[in-house]
Amino acid sequence: MGNLDICTLFSIFSGVVGLGIALILYLAIKRKSPGSPLMIEISEAIHSGAMVFLKREYIYISVFVTVVFIVLWQLFTIYTALAFLTGATCSMLAGFIGMKGSTRSSVRTTQAAIEGGTPLALSLALRGGAIMGLSVASLGLAGLGLFFFFTKSPLIINGFAMGASSVALFARVGGGIYTKSADVGADLVGKVEAGIPEDDPRNPGVIADNVGDNVGDTAGMGADLFESYVGSVVASMAIGATFSSALAYMSLPLLLITVGLIASIIGVFSIEWLKRLSPQSALRNATYISQALFLLGSFIIIKLLVNNINIFWSVVFGILSGILIGLESEYFTSGPPIKRIARSAQQGSAPSLITGLAVGFESTILPLLTLGAAIFLSYKFSGLYGIALSAVGMLGTIGIVMSTDSYGPIADNAGGIAEMSEADPKIRKITDKLDSLGNTTAAIGKGFAIGSAALTALALFSAYQKTARLTSINLTDVNTVVGLLLGALMPFAISYMTLSAVGRASNEMVKEIRRQFKEIKGLLEGKAKPDSDRCIDIVTRNALKEMILPGVSAVVTPLLVGFLLGAEALGGFLAGATATGVLLGIFMANAGAAWDNAKKWIEEGNLGGKGTPTHAASVIGDTVGDPLKDTAGPSMNILIKLMAVVALVFAPLIMH
Amino acid sequence: MGNLDICTLFSIFSGVVGLGIALILYLAIKRKSPGSPLMIEISEAIHSGAMVFLKREYIYISVFVTVVFIVLWQLFTIYTALAFLTGATCSMLAGFIGMKGSTRSSVRTTQAAIEGGTPLALSLALRGGAIMGLSVASLGLAGLGLFFFFTKSPLIINGFAMGASSVALFARVGGGIYTKSADVGADLVGKVEAGIPEDDPRNPGVIADNVGDNVGDTAGMGADLFESYVGSVVASMAIGATFSSALAYMSLPLLLITVGLIASIIGVFSIEWLKRLSPQSALRNATYISQALFLLGSFIIIKLLVNNINIFWSVVFGILSGILIGLESEYFTSGPPIKRIARSAQQGSAPSLITGLAVGFESTILPLLTLGAAIFLSYKFSGLYGIALSAVGMLGTIGIVMSTDSYGPIADNAGGIAEMSEADPKIRKITDKLDSLGNTTAAIGKGFAIGSAALTALALFSAYQKTARLTSINLTDVNTVVGLLLGALMPFAISYMTLSAVGRASNEMVKEIRRQFKEIKGLLEGKAKPDSDRCIDIVTRNALKEMILPGVSAVVTPLLVGFLLGAEALGGFLAGATATGVLLGIFMANAGAAWDNAKKWIEEGNLGGKGTPTHAASVIGDTVGDPLKDTAGPSMNILIKLMAVVALVFAPLIMH
Repeated sequence: MGNLDICTLFSIFSGVVGLGIALILYLAIKRKSPGSPLMIEISEAIHSGAMVFLKREYIYISVFVTVVFIVLWQLFTIYTALAFLTGATCSMLAGFIGMKGSTRSSVRTTQAAIEGGTPLALSLALRGGAIMGLSVASLGLAGLGLFFFFTKSPLIINGFAMGASSVALFARVGGGIYTKSADVGADLVGKVEAGIPEDDPRNPGVIADNVGDNVGDTAGMGADLFESYVGSVVASMAIGATFSSALAYMSLPLLLITVGLIASIIGVFSIEWLKRLSPQSALRNATYISQALFLLGSFIIIKLLVNNINIFWSVVFGILSGILIGLESEYFTSGPPIKRIARSAQQGSAPSLITGLAVGFESTILPLLTLGAAIFLSYKFSGLYGIALSAVGMLGTIGIVMSTDSYGPIADNAGGIAEMSEADPKIRKITDKLDSLGNTTAAIGKGFAIGSAALTALALFSAYQKTARLTSINLTDVNTVVGLLLGALMPFAISYMTLSAVGRASNEMVKEIRRQFKEIKGLLEGKAKPDSDRCIDIVTRNALKEMILPGVSAVVTPLLVGFLLGAEALGGFLAGATATGVLLGIFMANAGAAWDNAKKWIEEGNLGGKGTPTHAASVIGDTVGDPLKDTAGPSMNILIKLMAVVALVFAPLIMH
Repeated sequence: MGNLDICTLFSIFSGVVGLGIALILYLAIKRKSPGSPLMIEISEAIHSGAMVFLKREYIYISVFVTVVFIVLWQLFTIYTALAFLTGATCSMLAGFIGMKGSTRSSVRTTQAAIEGGTPLALSLALRGGAIMGLSVASLGLAGLGLFFFFTKSPLIINGFAMGASSVALFARVGGGIYTKSADVGADLVGKVEAGIPEDDPRNPGVIADNVGDNVGDTAGMGADLFESYVGSVVASMAIGATFSSALAYMSLPLLLITVGLIASIIGVFSIEWLKRLSPQSALRNATYISQALFLLGSFIIIKLLVNNINIFWSVVFGILSGILIGLESEYFTSGPPIKRIARSAQQGSAPSLITGLAVGFESTILPLLTLGAAIFLSYKFSGLYGIALSAVGMLGTIGIVMSTDSYGPIADNAGGIAEMSEADPKIRKITDKLDSLGNTTAAIGKGFAIGSAALTALALFSAYQKTARLTSINLTDVNTVVGLLLGALMPFAISYMTLSAVGRASNEMVKEIRRQFKEIKGLLEGKAKPDSDRCIDIVTRNALKEMILPGVSAVVTPLLVGFLLGAEALGGFLAGATATGVLLGIFMANAGAAWDNAKKWIEEGNLGGKGTPTHAASVIGDTVGDPLKDTAGPSMNILIKLMAVVALVFAPLIMH
């Protein structure tokens, strides 16, 4: 057994340890008090709603995974098929563990706020988030390590990424449709028609809405970042495999993310200490600590393993561009632009909508320039491999990034539970504060998710070129141009599908909530209970039904282009899809978040605060932005990666 | 003098005759009665407002044109610079004549409705539109013919297209900002705050609003289609110049558009006869007649000149895809999708906005597939030359297409004048009917404008490849990928600039109208007159100021990419820009028009009609859509063509 094999075993071992820590965190949190009987009842409803959705979603996905498993087995080998199955399973497992962690943590965060105030609640919520964060990082690392140890074949390991991508697609799209249908449905009837506040227990849709937060922001985001993480490593391996000292260059990304996982674990536990310095910036500082450690470790490993400092620079560009894109999206979704939107709301909803669209367009400029600079520099320093490694650099510390991301919905849900269980208003104040701490990391996280998706897609695109042995993807050939146009069209087509899906599914929800308010006597007076389960059932069924068309289109279209128009045309297709996908993704995510935060800024008492026409105008922007930022926008992340992975896996067949 | 020279002289002669017919139409219309003194006063205000804008706009453009003239002279030859100057002048002249025609025709259309009812008013309005339509086609033909006759050099004639493009940019962007700032400003204060109806003479912004219709829909659209028309011919010539029998292939596009002009003139006069058969579809049938004649003539010319039937097929694909894209955009902006938007408005403005966005996304699918099929087939039949000739085919009958397009704003303005001059309501009914006849052609026209812009941009992209002698635009090279990303970003960046510009300019307008309502005593009671000139001045100044940044960016960015990253990267840049530009252009134009027509459908009495919350919700969608469909969307058409033309002109310098 060579040194590299021992290193790989160490990577797998680290993954297992990381997963162990996640489980210990979970068990420790489960032992905390879940509060009063009412709180337990509410949290059980959310927990079981989330689990019902997840289980049914996984059944749908299993059908798809089985079909693809057989196809891959027949077209390639059983090993590729097995890698695919394992990738899909790891992603689902991470989602399952993370979701359990989130739903168990939120009620205990409310209780911790009651028992120990902000500091206790903060660290509980963050540990809850770390269950997801560490599961994602550890399962990815262990799974990749295992297949690398036994096969050393990128053609097999690519299957692992395709498994991760397939699950991500359905989780993001299905989850996105779920969360927004529930949200829009509950708000339209509850807040607007019945005039009861948000998170009011009389609203039959409110549990579904809270379930949606977990389904979209936790499970969806987890699967998304898991896909990027795995994709960036797989792309590096596929390119590294074409080098003369292939094994070292294939091992490198695996070792880098091993260091990243260790750095993330240190980051998670550093919060205990950081929160005493400044609770405001504890989450962010923990991320910076992890990234600094990761950078240091990367330098040492690259020096020892391949002794090529140019490659280290590519990693640095990846880390830096990840941080920059996060900050850029923070600026546009919580900086001066949201005040611009709020001020134009003083003239009515239409001006604030137009301003929001303009802000969305504007917010694409800096991230695209950042991405362009990152791939340009990474390439100049170390070629296509450099592009892939910059993606690994960006995603290496996924453990801590995902932990702070998952923290958000836990804090949000904790607030919802406080409201529904009619807790002391001062408890709601604490949870609101926790929630607002999470808003910044959420903005950064969403920007990061798109940025990393783009870089991963470009890395996979590079890997596809190498695997299909393309020396040229020539835009003077009409097939490539047609491929490019079709690729560019895909994000628009998928946005259409997901937005219409939200419209249809929320319509069903609206009908049901209206029916309950009408038919259940005493519901509005608080004397009878709503039938939350029926709402959950309706929105689950619709979300899952609606995710099939966009899901299947995303898998089938690149294959059609590849087999009908050729390998070069498929290259053009991927380039077109990545370019428009990133732009549209950033546009929708940031416009949506900016409208949301403009409304929140007004609600803080600015420009007259709640109850003014300005506030009412800003609410419309927020509602319009919701499906953009939580359904269609995030779907872009998956779309561009999945299509690139499908191309990568099928490259050996398409090139013939 | 060879046969081809005689043919060219015939083309120039046809252009001069066409222009003569346009002038005769103008003089004939000017001799008609402009109606009552009040009508004359109003129409004079609109006329002089439009002329003030046009003159000031042309002064701004002249500065730009002078600078570029000197640059081209120094870098190339005086002939390229002169071609540029002539192209710019022809475009401005067409805009000037067309605008005179429109503003003179609209008041006489109102009067014709009073004197002779629908038939008389219809033919007057259409003849008014034909002034613009025939000017555009004739000036383009004569100008191109002249430079071809004397130089035979595509490197010089390319300058003509760049001149046309530069004017188009400023006319479309400046005009688009003008028309929407005036519209939004007048509506926000007049309709919403003061509660007076649209086109009410007490509103200080109403004349500016009516001026805006001419500035945007007539002058802007004219410059846009002029650019496509010229661009498609120039692209064909540049590619044809690389063939062995170059002269024949360079003459062909010129002869084709000569036939197209003759066919258009016949189409214009056939309306007299067609309107007796069915006034509803007279405009559309006239277009079909012209296209059929054009097809027949093309077949004969291609047979005689190059005897290559494959090339004829490329022309056919161009004509067919133009018709298809028009019909597709008609479906999405007046078919079942608008009812879907209207129905979701029953649940409030946010759902109708989301549905509208979904319709916008959906509406990109068919046109993109149509375009993809057109270039694929054209290329398979006759290579890059085929792509360029399909654009010529699409644009050959621009004379009749532009005539029916210009008809719309004339009918619209005629209605406004009827309203403002407090004419008999039954006159308004006639003008409303004329207006609705124009709505369909307007929807088709807008789709056609984008489709032809895309095909022209692809043709210019092909010509760029040939001129820069690129055998490859390789997406496995990072420079090309970065170029592609930057290109894809441009449409998003320009959309940001134009949308923000409308926001700022309409704000200035709102302030001024509010001031007048407050400070001018007796204005609301109709006892005092508003200061319309001041409003026109403010919106003119702001629109012109705001068009500079997007205009200069569009010219400078492709040069930066070309000189810094190289000729291949510039190729990637153009491909990326064209793909996202077309998609975003279609999305914005169709979403905007669909919201507009959903509102109109409700106003016809559906779903409760005017005064209901459903109607109020639909008004918000309409207002949001306005700057999308009339400012940012149309800017995309110009952007993609202009950047391709700039690349084409500078190709000889960039390739070194």
